[in-house]
Formats: sequence, C-alpha cells, structure tokens
Amino acid sequence: MPTFDLVVRGGTVCGPGGSGVADVGITGRRIVAVAEAGSLGDAAKVIDATGAFVVPGGVDPHVHTSLLLGEFSTLDGFAESTAAAAWGGTTTLVDFAIPQPPGVLSPLACAEQRIEMAVGQAIVDVAFHGCVVKADQISIRQIPELFGHGLTTLKVFTIYKDLVQLSLEDVRACMKEVAAAGGLLLVHAESPHIVEPLRGEFQAAGQTDAYHHALARPPESELDMVRTILELFRLTGCPGYIVHVSTPEAAIEIARARLEGTRVWAETCPHYVFLDDSKYRGEDGDLYICSPPLRPRGLADRLWHLVQNGAFQVWGSDHCCYNSAQKFKYRGDFTKTPNGMPGVEVRAPLLFSEGVMANKISLGQFVALTATNPAKLNGLYPRKGTIAPGADADLAIYDPGWEVELNSKRLHMPTDYTPFEGFKVKGWPTTVIAGGRLVVDESRFLGEPGWGEVLQTGKPTLSVS
Amino acid sequence: MPTFDLVVRGGTVCGPGGSGVADVGITGRRIVAVAEAGSLGDAAKVIDATGAFVVPGGVDPHVHTSLLLGEFSTLDGFAESTAAAAWGGTTTLVDFAIPQPPGVLSPLACAEQRIEMAVGQAIVDVAFHGCVVKADQISIRQIPELFGHGLTTLKVFTIYKDLVQLSLEDVRACMKEVAAAGGLLLVHAESPHIVEPLRGEFQAAGQTDAYHHALARPPESELDMVRTILELFRLTGCPGYIVHVSTPEAAIEIARARLEGTRVWAETCPHYVFLDDSKYRGEDGDLYICSPPLRPRGLADRLWHLVQNGAFQVWGSDHCCYNSAQKFKYRGDFTKTPNGMPGVEVRAPLLFSEGVMANKISLGQFVALTATNPAKLNGLYPRKGTIAPGADADLAIYDPGWEVELNSKRLHMPTDYTPFEGFKVKGWPTTVIAGGRLVVDESRFLGEPGWGEVLQTGKPTLSVS
Amino acid sequence: MPTFDLVVRGGTVCGPGGSGVADVGITGRRIVAVAEAGSLGDAAKVIDATGAFVVPGGVDPHVHTSLLLGEFSTLDGFAESTAAAAWGGTTTLVDFAIPQPPGVLSPLACAEQRIEMAVGQAIVDVAFHGCVVKADQISIRQIPELFGHGLTTLKVFTIYKDLVQLSLEDVRACMKEVAAAGGLLLVHAESPHIVEPLRGEFQAAGQTDAYHHALARPPESELDMVRTILELFRLTGCPGYIVHVSTPEAAIEIARARLEGTRVWAETCPHYVFLDDSKYRGEDGDLYICSPPLRPRGLADRLWHLVQNGAFQVWGSDHCCYNSAQKFKYRGDFTKTPNGMPGVEVRAPLLFSEGVMANKISLGQFVALTATNPAKLNGLYPRKGTIAPGADADLAIYDPGWEVELNSKRLHMPTDYTPFEGFKVKGWPTTVIAGGRLVVDESRFLGEPGWGEVLQTGKPTLSVS
Amino acid sequence: MPTFDLVVRGGTVCGPGGSGVADVGITGRRIVAVAEAGSLGDAAKVIDATGAFVVPGGVDPHVHTSLLLGEFSTLDGFAESTAAAAWGGTTTLVDFAIPQPPGVLSPLACAEQRIEMAVGQAIVDVAFHGCVVKADQISIRQIPELFGHGLTTLKVFTIYKDLVQLSLEDVRACMKEVAAAGGLLLVHAESPHIVEPLRGEFQAAGQTDAYHHALARPPESELDMVRTILELFRLTGCPGYIVHVSTPEAAIEIARARLEGTRVWAETCPHYVFLDDSKYRGEDGDLYICSPPLRPRGLADRLWHLVQNGAFQVWGSDHCCYNSAQKFKYRGDFTKTPNGMPGVEVRAPLLFSEGVMANKISLGQFVALTATNPAKLNGLYPRKGTIAPGADADLAIYDPGWEVELNSKRLHMPTDYTPFEGFKVKGWPTTVIAGGRLVVDESRFLGEPGWGEVLQTGKPTLSVS
Repeated sequence: MPTFDLVVRGGTVCGPGGSGVADVGITGRRIVAVAEAGSLGDAAKVIDATGAFVVPGGVDPHVHTSLLLGEFSTLDGFAESTAAAAWGGTTTLVDFAIPQPPGVLSPLACAEQRIEMAVGQAIVDVAFHGCVVKADQISIRQIPELFGHGLTTLKVFTIYKDLVQLSLEDVRACMKEVAAAGGLLLVHAESPHIVEPLRGEFQAAGQTDAYHHALARPPESELDMVRTILELFRLTGCPGYIVHVSTPEAAIEIARARLEGTRVWAETCPHYVFLDDSKYRGEDGDLYICSPPLRPRGLADRLWHLVQNGAFQVWGSDHCCYNSAQKFKYRGDFTKTPNGMPGVEVRAPLLFSEGVMANKISLGQFVALTATNPAKLNGLYPRKGTIAPGADADLAIYDPGWEVELNSKRLHMPTDYTPFEGFKVKGWPTTVIAGGRLVVDESRFLGEPGWGEVLQTGKPTLSVS
Repeated sequence: MPTFDLVVRGGTVCGPGGSGVADVGITGRRIVAVAEAGSLGDAAKVIDATGAFVVPGGVDPHVHTSLLLGEFSTLDGFAESTAAAAWGGTTTLVDFAIPQPPGVLSPLACAEQRIEMAVGQAIVDVAFHGCVVKADQISIRQIPELFGHGLTTLKVFTIYKDLVQLSLEDVRACMKEVAAAGGLLLVHAESPHIVEPLRGEFQAAGQTDAYHHALARPPESELDMVRTILELFRLTGCPGYIVHVSTPEAAIEIARARLEGTRVWAETCPHYVFLDDSKYRGEDGDLYICSPPLRPRGLADRLWHLVQNGAFQVWGSDHCCYNSAQKFKYRGDFTKTPNGMPGVEVRAPLLFSEGVMANKISLGQFVALTATNPAKLNGLYPRKGTIAPGADADLAIYDPGWEVELNSKRLHMPTDYTPFEGFKVKGWPTTVIAGGRLVVDESRFLGEPGWGEVLQTGKPTLSVS
Repeated sequence: MPTFDLVVRGGTVCGPGGSGVADVGITGRRIVAVAEAGSLGDAAKVIDATGAFVVPGGVDPHVHTSLLLGEFSTLDGFAESTAAAAWGGTTTLVDFAIPQPPGVLSPLACAEQRIEMAVGQAIVDVAFHGCVVKADQISIRQIPELFGHGLTTLKVFTIYKDLVQLSLEDVRACMKEVAAAGGLLLVHAESPHIVEPLRGEFQAAGQTDAYHHALARPPESELDMVRTILELFRLTGCPGYIVHVSTPEAAIEIARARLEGTRVWAETCPHYVFLDDSKYRGEDGDLYICSPPLRPRGLADRLWHLVQNGAFQVWGSDHCCYNSAQKFKYRGDFTKTPNGMPGVEVRAPLLFSEGVMANKISLGQFVALTATNPAKLNGLYPRKGTIAPGADADLAIYDPGWEVELNSKRLHMPTDYTPFEGFKVKGWPTTVIAGGRLVVDESRFLGEPGWGEVLQTGKPTLSVS
Repeated sequence: MPTFDLVVRGGTVCGPGGSGVADVGITGRRIVAVAEAGSLGDAAKVIDATGAFVVPGGVDPHVHTSLLLGEFSTLDGFAESTAAAAWGGTTTLVDFAIPQPPGVLSPLACAEQRIEMAVGQAIVDVAFHGCVVKADQISIRQIPELFGHGLTTLKVFTIYKDLVQLSLEDVRACMKEVAAAGGLLLVHAESPHIVEPLRGEFQAAGQTDAYHHALARPPESELDMVRTILELFRLTGCPGYIVHVSTPEAAIEIARARLEGTRVWAETCPHYVFLDDSKYRGEDGDLYICSPPLRPRGLADRLWHLVQNGAFQVWGSDHCCYNSAQKFKYRGDFTKTPNGMPGVEVRAPLLFSEGVMANKISLGQFVALTATNPAKLNGLYPRKGTIAPGADADLAIYDPGWEVELNSKRLHMPTDYTPFEGFKVKGWPTTVIAGGRLVVDESRFLGEPGWGEVLQTGKPTLSVS
C-alpha cells in the first residue's frame, strides 16, 4: 500500500449508491483508495473531515461562460466562472460552443475558439457541448468531427428565431447524426408556434413588462414541444436530454417516455423549483427574465415534488452571468432584455440545503443529480462523478453546520445581483479539491487559472435512471 | 495502512453507482479498503479477479425456506437454501415467518420459531419478514414488538382464503402500524373477488388443468388489487412494496404512483420475465404452477422491457423448493397443487446472463436490482448491498467466460426439477465470499452450516428509485 | 289525418337529437303526430306553447319513495313523490325495491310489496329497480324472475355494512346473472375498506360532526371502488351503471372505460354539482349528510365541467325525503344521521336553469340527461324519453320567463327543508302532461292518485353515449 | 291538417335520438309532419316504407369534386359527384374551395369560382369549406368575408409543402380568426418534420413503392400533430375538427381533450376502418395511396372499436375520384402518385352494412355519424340531418334485404376502380328523396342537374358529443 499525497479522513463519504464514514486517499490527480476511517495514515497532507460530508465534486452540465447572444455578452470569463463554480463545490463545467452570429463560424470552428478561451484560464475542468444553430449541410456534417474533437454531446434549440432556432426537420437530422456517432442530443424545447405569436401580440399591445414575458411562454409551449421531441427521439433512436424542464407536465411526459423505452433524460434548475413567477410582478421583475420563464408557485411545488420522486436525473444551473445594468437596459421591455441569470455558484449548495438538510432528498440523490448523472450523460464518467479508485480527485466537503444568507456580495460571480437574494442556506462546501489540489481550503480560495483542463468527453454512459 | 486478511485483486468492482478496476481489501468480516488495482499488496490471501466482475453478494428478498402452507412443505432447510443461494452468488436471504396454520402461533412466536430454525444451520446470512395472516388484535398489536425483535418488514396477503388472506380493512390496519413503526409493508396483491369465483367456476366445470390455473388469475386480478393497495398506501402514508409483480400494467401503475409521491416499490422475479404461460400447455404444466401465474409471452416481454427501463427496483426469487412428486401429486388439479417453484440459486445468474451479458441492463442496474435495493428496503444497508469500507465482506465474483446449461442435477437445490431447464447461462459467480470467508472458491463449496448469522434488520432505507 | 284529443301548439319541441318549432298532436295516452307549427288544427284541447320549450317528461332514474333503512323512513308515499316529481316536470320515476331488513323479504317479494304500495297511489308512472342486498342463493337466483316481473335493472351496494352491502364476489355473481338476463346493473360504489376504518377512527375520537362525515368518505373511496367495479364489468361483460358519481376522477375513469369498450354509464346528481362540502361546516351541516358526501368546490366545478362535456349520461335526484327533525335527531353524530336529501322536484329545473338558460349545456343535452338516456337505460324507451309518434304523451312545457327562488314552502315535497334553499331558478315546467292528461296546467295541479301506472321495464337500450 | 305532396308511410323512422315506426309527411321541399303509421292518408304520392329504415339523407362533410392538386385533377364534376352521392343515400355534400396553385386565387375568389362550378350542376345540395393555403395577410383577413359568403368552416393543412401547407404559426392565426367569426376549423394533421425527411430518405434509397408511402407517414406523425393542434385549439378557444383520423392513439387524445373541455371533434373514413396497409403490399398497391395512409390491421380494428364506442362524431368519405390510369401513371413511385380514392357513393352504405346490419352500432349512431353530426358541425342543422317538421325533406330509405357485392361497374362514380372491390354490402338506400323530390326511386335514378342548391352554411351547432 503506497503512501498518499493527500488523505481526506473520517468524513461521511457519499457516492451515488450510498454513503459511509471512510478515508479517501489521493495520489497525484486521482483517488487511489477508499478505506476504513482512520486506516489511511501515511500522507503528505491530511484533511480532517469528521462530521462533514465528502461528495464527488459537482458537475454542472449547463453553464454559459462569456455567452454572446444578440446584443449582450455575459460578464464572466472562464477564470471567473470556474472560480465561482469551485466556491460552490462544482469542479467540472460543461459549457457550450454556440456559433454566433449564425453563419459566421462553423460548429467546429466555434468549438475550437471556445476551447482556446478556456485553456489557461480555467481553474477547474471544463468540457463543451457542440451546437448546431444553422441547418446548413456543413454544420450537420460536422457532427462526427465534433465527436472526434471530444465534444460528444450536441445541443439544439427549437426556439430563438434568427439566433439559434432550428426547424424540427433539422432537429431530426441532428438526431440521426448524433445517434450514429454514439452521442447525446440536448434540446431546448419550447414551441415557436405558441411563443412567437403571443410575443407579437403582447408587443403590439405594449404589454412588454416582465410578467408578460412569462405569459408569452406558457406551460403548454414546453409541453407541446417536449412531446414532439420525445416522438422524434423515439423514432430516430437518438439518446436525448431535455434541458431546463420547467413544468411538471413536461417532466411527467419525459418520465413516461423513458418507462416505455425511449432513452431520454431530464434536467431542471434551481430557479424553476425555488423561485416562481411572482418575481415578475415585483419592481425588479426584469432581473428574473429567463426562458423558459419562472412558473406559478403551484407548478414549482409540483416540480420540486418530482425532483424528490425521481423524475429528474440532472440538476443544472443554466448559468448566464448578466448584471442588473444589462437586465435593466431595456427595463419594461422583455422582448429586448437578455434571458438568463447567474447561478453556477449556488446550484449545488441550494439543493444540498433545501434537499439534503431539509430531509427532502437523500445524499445519494444529491450526488446523482449534481455529479454522477451529469458526468455519465456527458461522457465524463467514471473519471468524474464518483469517489472510487481511479477517479479524478475532485471532492467537495460540505460542512453541515455552516449557514449563510445569500446575497451577491458574498458570492463570487462578477455580477451585482443574485436571484436567490436572502435565501438562507444550510451546509456549504467549505473545502473543495479538484484534480488532487485544494482549490478552496476552509473557505480560503487557493485555485489559480490554468489548474483546470479542457476535457474531451467520451461516449455518454446511458445507464442513468 | 493495515495488512489485510484477504484481498480481491484487479477485478472490475461494481457498486450500485458504477464500476472500475480496483482491489478490495478485507479484514475479518468486513471490507476495509477499495483501492487502485495492484495497490493492496499485503494480505494473508489474495484472489486474482482479473477479467472478472466483483459485485456485492446478492440479497434475495423473497425466499421461502421450509415453507409449510396447507398440505405441503417445501423440501429445504436453512442449510440447503443458504447453500444453494451461495452457489448462485447470493449471500443474504430474507425469508418469512408465516404463522401456519393461522391462529396457532402469533406473528412473534412464529418469528422466534423461524429464527431458531435458521440459527446454526444457515451458511450465509438470513433475515426475516414478519407476517400477519389473521386479523386478531394480538397479531396487529404485535407489529411494534416484531420491529423490536429485528423484523422491520411485514408481509400481508390479499388472497389465499383460510390460509393467509387478510381483508382490505385489516391490510389497512397493518399499514397504519407499519407506518408508525417506521417499517415497510410487503403485499401479495391479487383480487380474491376475481380469482375465487373463477376458480370455483373452473372447478365446477372440471377445468382444473394447469392452464386454467392461469386463466383463474387473469392480469386484471393483479392490476385491480395493485390499484387498491396503492390507494391505501397513499392514504395511510405507509411505505410499501409489491411482491412478484407479474404484469406490465400493474408495474406501470406502481411507477406512476411513485412519481406522484407514493412511497412504493416493485419486485419481479425471473420466471415472470423469462418464462411464459405456454408452459401450462405442456405435459408438465403443473410444475410451473405459481401465483401470480406465468403470463402470455407478450406481457412477459413488456415486463422485461420495464425491468430494463427502471420500473422495477428489486429482483426476487420467490423460492419454494417443491419437487416434482409434490407438484404432480394432484396432477391435473391446480386447486390442490402447491404453488411455487425453486429458484434461489439461479435468481442472480439469470439476470446477469440475460441482462448484463446480453447488454440489456448495465452492471449498475444488476447490482441495484439484486443486492443494493433489496438491502436498502429491508433495512440491511449499508452493511449489505455495497462494496465500501465498513460493509460486510460479501462478494460474488462473476466469471464472464463461464457457460452452463441449466438442469436440476447441476444445481444444488434439493429438488428434481428446475423451471429453467435447458437455459444457457453465460457468466457465473464461481467464487463467493460471505462475511470475509470463502464460501465458494472457484466452484468448490467450502461453506458450513453456522457460518451465517440471523440478522436483525434496521429501518428500511427508502432512498431507492 | 285524425283529429286529436290534445294539441300542444307552436312550442320549441326538443327531442334528444335537436329541436324545432312544431305542433305535437296527442290522442289518448300517446303522441300521434309532430308537425309544422300551426298545422294541427282539429283538437279537443289546444295548449299554446309559443315561446316555450316542449320537452319529453323527465325520467328520474334514482328515487327513494318511502325508504326504510335502519331506524328512519322517508316521509313521502307514492302519491307525494309522484306529485312532487310532476310539479318539477318529471313524469316517470324509477324507484327501488330494497329488501329491508336484509333476510326477511326476498328481492321478488319486496318488489311485489313495493309495486303494491305504488298502485293506486302514483300520479305519474313508476317503475322499479330490483335489489340484491344479501348474498343468499335465493336472492341471486331470483334475478331472472325479477326480469320476468318487469324489473330489468338491478342495484347493488358495495357499502353500508349490515344493511345492504354485498361482497365484491357477490357483486360479480350478480353481474353474471344480470348479463345473462340482458339487464343492467346499478352500483353504489364506495370502498368499505377505506370508509369503515375512517368512520371508526373518527367515532373513537369523538369527531362525528358533519364535516367528518365527508372526511370519512374521501374521493379516493369512490375512485378505488369505481376502478374495481369497472374491471368486473369488463370481465363479466355485464352492462353497468354507476349511480351518483361525485368525483371527477371517477367520472373520467368511467369515460375511459367506455371508450375502451366497457359498456358502462355514469349518473350524477344536482347536489354534487351545485353544492359543496362547505355546507358541512355550517350550523345545519347535518341536513346535507348524504353518501357519497358533497365534495370540495374545486371537485364540484370539475364535475360540472364534465357534465357539460359529455362524461355523464344521466342526471338523477337520489331523492330521499327526510325532514329536519330526522336529520337533526342525532345532530352532531353523522354515524347515526340518516343519509340522503329531498330532490325529485328540483332535479330537472335546476339543470334547465343552470345548464340551458345559462348556456352551459344545450337543450339536446338537457333532454338526453333528464329523460332520453334514463328511459333508454331503464328499458322504457321509446315509450318514454322522446317526442315522437307512438311515445307516451308525457311532456313538460318549460316557460323560460318564469323565475323562482327555491325554498321548502314553495316546493311540494313533504319536508321542511331543501338543500337548494335560496337558489334562483330561471325557467320552470309550468305545464306538465303525463299519459295525455294535464297533471299541471299553468301551475295548477290537476293530477290524482291512480293516474300513474306501475310500468314493467323492458330490456335496456344500450345505444347511449 | 293539410294534405301532403308526399308521404313516406310505415317505415322505421330514425332520427339521431331514436326510432319508431311512423309516417313522414312532406310538402314542397320540407318535412311537415311525423305521425303515427298509417295516419297520414292524403297525399299526392305515397311511398310504402314498411320494413325499411327511413333515415335523414346523408351529409358527407369531406368531398373533393373536381380536385386540382399538383399535376392531377379528379374526374368528376358536381353533376357526377352529387349523382354518386345520391345513389348512396347522401343528399348533401360539403366540398372544398382550395385555391390552387397557391397564390393565384384568394380564398374568397376561389370560393366564388367553386360555387359557380356547382350551380346548375348539382343534383343534391352542396356547401363549401373555405381554405387558407397561403399565409399572406389577404388570405387570413378574408376569413370573416368567407363567413359572410356562407362558408363558416375553414380548412387548413399542416402538410403538403408548396401546395397547401401552412406553418403552425399561421394555423394558429387562422384559429384566432375562425374563433372570432364563430366558425369551425378543420385540420389535416400530419407532421411535416416526420413525413418529409422519411419521404426524402426513401426517395434517395429508391424505395418508392406503395408500402413505403405508408412507412413515410407513420402513426406517430398523426399523433404528434394532433397533440400540437389540440394544444392550439385549447389555447385559442377555436372550435376544431380533425379530418380523417386514421389512428386509435390520435382518436383517444382527441376524446380526452374534449372530455377536458376543448371543443374538438373527430372524423374518420371507411377506408381507415375497413381496409388496411396489406393493400400496399399487393400488385395494385398504388391504387390505395392516400394520406394519411391505410394502417396495419391491428390499428384499423382498434379504430373500428373506437367508432363503435363514441370516439368519433363524423364519418366522412374524403372522396377523390381518380381512376387507375392516374393512380398508375407513376406506378411504383408514391412521391408522384396522386393521393386519394373514390368513395362518396359507398360511405354511408358501408357503415350501414358493417355497423347497423352487423349489430356493431345502433341506427341512432349511424344517423348521428352520417347525417346529424356533420349537419350540426357544418352549420346546416336543423335544416339537414334530422327528420322533423321544418327540416328539408332529404330522406334515404334503406332496404335491409338488399345485398350487393361492390365493384366499380355497379357503382356510379366516373372511375374504373373502387378500393372496396368485392365487399358484400347488406342493406342499401334504394329510394332517396332530396328536397322533397325522388332522386332515386327503387334503384331508378330520376335526379337532374340543377335540382341541388349551393347552400350557405350558418354558425356551426356545437352540441355534438
């Protein structure tokens, strides 16, 4: 038995299948042993995790660093987004390579550009989803090439005309290519035939306040498109993933489809569960504009219930780091306001607090939702998402006694607001290890740009339920 | 780092959450370390598992050793049933304490009697489900006492009049007690108002061949009672478990109920998936009489599909070791023929072969279905059902290259037939460790009566999805 | 073309399939012609119906005249119940022959007794449902005899232990007999395994106020039993009818079953739609005790929606003419208070007012729900329930300009309260013809005991959707 | 009582609500009396209908006379299509005004052109559905004008790119206009995103035989689009009608939506029930090309079951009178073969034979499906679709003893094939009256061009269930 570079001693070690008090031995970048508490003695450094929960570092499958879409760009670079992620116990980000404006860059060229942006900047590991936003033959034909370059997941949008929207026929064409290449297709599912005319009618009527943003994207819009996409996944055999599901009916349709044999998984995000559309009625309603929009409290409650009961496999942030100046530039006009909210830092801690600490979900569910399942579906498993010999030594050590009230100043994202302002969070990952290195050590930040790698993803592991 | 009593080296170690090549270090009865392959060097004994799959020893949640029900008794004692289990990679049996005939023994007295039967005989560990088969006030009031004696799961039957059947009102009363005590209620769900009159009509018409056994217990009988039981679980808040679900419609109802927040899980068995009711048309049809009966091929195929897609959490054997003389004593009269078939030995290997080796389910699913989930739901986790420091050193080492054609002579149950006669099985647990001891060593049996403990179960772990 | 005894001239004549302005010519007991308005000139008497709606006299399929159940008897004889019916536009009552106490009278003897009670008393026509309330062989064997005596519909109860409850096995036996005889089985569907223990628990806790009556019979109780009964109808092939459905979920299950080929129909009653369980919170809560109980407003609204959308085929009163002295005898103790409310007089006018006049349902739906469908399902069609040559001359002439505020003094049932106290009703059948005779002539009552016949019903007409 | 021009004496007169033996008295174009059999004596002409069924003349809501679509035109003019209709007991046709090629004629100009074609030619009455096939502002704005011209139903297509397909956004715009105008929107619902790529793939692979026509339009294509259209009907409040539903799953979705309050109705056609996709495997497969395509036998059987159980309200022909030369011009290339089959003559008789005579549906259902409901939904009721004073004297007198084996020579459509070749039909409308005139008199054809009117339709009557 070798000696170790680092031993995390005596914590409650939580994998996706369960937990127990144990020592974790790390050498170099990797975990090399999990053993009885106290048994791993010889180490260059020992962290005492007694009383704490040692979980796999989070994998956030839905992050938009430096997102350019239309007039606005989000405010963080990869140094900032990966730092904020690490502060919140997340040690792997899967970001997007969205060619913008459409038609200038090919998916592959865009991917190369995005990778270049991250290299040397990232503090924890980063991978990318490819994107097809224009249905030219080049884009769709490049899908196998993207896979060859380590982007084995592809995202498409059914909405956002003139920016990223594909026709359903083109979505189907992508499914065929992704299925053939052995990848996973992510879909943003809203129905343009429902949303666009409502937007138009509200705009014509001068009803462009934030609440009308929600009214223009009713639950039916998500449900309708989810059903169509499920039918296409079924017909093409392409493994699929519906991002940021915001309504219980859509979630139930996805669960039923999976039960009947369609290979499809569902992601939701903290804001769809813990916030609701009453935010749009407030003075600062524009801060909460995102798509799909926040839903009525009744739907949000049912969504949370479904998270607890296994309808969702993945918990993503859909992080878009705008600040209030950007969100308010066209205050009162939702048609011009950028969509999205900052969230990479709080994604996992919010679920830990509201779920695990409040006895609504188990630790195993927490680990599965925030780390194991996103690692599997994004082709990063078993390197990421588990605590086992051979896995990367990415660990978040949650101190259950820590309590914090959220506000943007305490958080580390380069923005001046958080949608979760005032939330009281119990439990926080006060120590975070990534690739065997202490990135956060008892709430002191030690990470440096360049510590993170840009990962090539492998074939998705589809044994997720 | 201590030295080990036993190291299993270099196998693909599979927990419920995933797998990787690693060493497993064992000291005494327990696993003490899981570490990089080749890193655990110092051990009294080393088993080379290169190329093999190292999984947690199976937990069979549904075993009837020495079952007395009506005229017949099954033929194995605990030495025999635990031996056969071990031959098939199963290292924990959860058996039943069914007071028979009703009214003679109280549930508690029966449990004590059953425990006594197992002590000193069991080769691997055994636990028991309590049973209430008569709705006297003593029986229901004893439920908390049963829990105090280490029986935290209770089984009831909605059918088998004059033997074990409870009224629905009494089933509900049990649910209230079990919920209050923090346990789990197992239900055999068939509708007597459907089955009894059909039996009566067939009997009156002289239609008592094996095929009419199946016709007397139509799929509607299971579906109808499952719906009622789900409603009762929902209303009482009692965590529930439906044993041996044999029809896809019932399985789907259970899955929906769980999605909507009812805490309920479903078990199925190899014979409902791999056999079908064509067996009843054959000359030896009586050998296959069990309840619920084998179903038409179309339903069995859909059931297998549902196993693959996550509708089931547990894979049980419903082992009843009758021999052909017993099954044929009243040949041609299903109303007198004992119900049940031998199966504890083949439960896990059949799923490994048809599921894992045939690429229909993942290793993680196999482990969850055959070990982790039954351990959790029966209050045996994390002592059983996982490979992690602190867990019992119960391991089954599957050799994927092993091929065997099943017949009763090669198997080790004290009976002269197997319902799976002629099945070609790929992969077999040729080495089995229980409590740190080699019970089966490269197909040689080393286990001895008394090696197994009678376990007291704790509160069920309900984080199973 | 003969001359007529009576011509109803120029009204909007409404059959189940539609309506138009026309004359109706009557000779003796029967309608002999429907013709262009103004064309039927020669008649002994002419009623000018210009501006009024001429509909088939109502058929109330669910009336309990002189009901004896347990300690209490309802207060009307057949003279009173048929008079009240006629005042409300209903010209045929289908009442029940419920042998009470069980075991004294056979179904047939009870039917004979009930027929005798009605003969000479009834002012409009009356028919009877047979009932089996005890599962002795005599009762079930008498079903064909009941049919021979003109009772082709049979009712059973799944609840009311020691009074009328049958076991599910006995219900199934009745289904087999009724199916063989070509009849229709009516079922009161509530689950004793849900209701009885809740009643017991509330009683033990001293919670016997009217609101706990509703809590003891939750929606799940109806849903659960309806599902089971539907399964039994499907398996036996017996045409079925669920009386007084009170919950939308149960109604939807019935509609689905019919769509899938089970021959089953659903009845609801005015109180389940227009009243709600807030009544039980009031001081006079006990007046509203009935089973199933009134439901929460949300469910009642959904039920009304389902009435409008075709989920129900029949609108019955479930008339039980108790007075407040009876309902209050054990005030505060729902376990002793008689179940049921007076309603035969207001059944049709309430639906006319809230449905037709409020533009929620069409006249055709009104006629189908209140007359045609109950006539068909009870084997009275086309003698009853339609306006066509050959049909009985039973007509209700609704004056849409009539407005009345309901209270017990204005109504004609021998009781001192109405559950619909204060309801403002628009439109009333101010003239009513039964068997060609004017029973109510512009709000003057002319009917006399003995005008009504006791009808023998034929085979149910099952073409109802 | 006046004397009559014509009396139909002693037949079983069948309205939508039921039937009875009666006389029908006709004066001029209209029915003026329905009276006791034998009572209407004074008439210029008396038809003895003893032993026959007298039903309202059929209303075929889906007829394409002289259809021009792409390269081909169907072969009948209005004289021919109305003659064939009358031969088969149908006395009202609702045809279409489909502007072709798109962009040349406005909907209104097209309607005027179509009306002109019919005037003076039609032997029985004809009305028209307007159509929007191009989403220019003129077309959609013309919807109210169409209503003013007596076209109160509008049809749109979600498929047939470059010919008639509208985008979903434009379909929604039509719904808004139709809802505002008080009309009904008919939708041909298939998903282009499913059909178009499959067609493309099959074409590229040279798989253009008739069977691949069916494979290119899988059941999922209909189900998917029906769900979307239902969502849009629900959101816009527009009353809707799905033409030629060919799959049980889609029919069930529509039935559920209606139960939940969406105002939507469903039509199916004889070929989807009585034929199946085995036709495409035969040598003459191209003759059966239509869209949606014929379905597998299992689906067709379930569809027939749903017709019997009330899932459909309307039975249409989708008559397209091509001949074999046209269907075979591009034999073996489904992409070029015209879609559609001749059927106006056999629509009602097939349902009478397979439904009424075979005891699968009641006479009331037959009348509702073939006459009353299409009359109501197309704003022709109560002038059409019923036998009542004031209604048009359109009657079909079915002789139940007539038997015929179908072939194209016996039929009267100007084509050389019938898809129902060899079908044995029992019962035929050997006498047909339209507008009070004998068009077919005991199988002799008396009708003449110009006898039929072009009808302006009124607001749809939506009380259809």
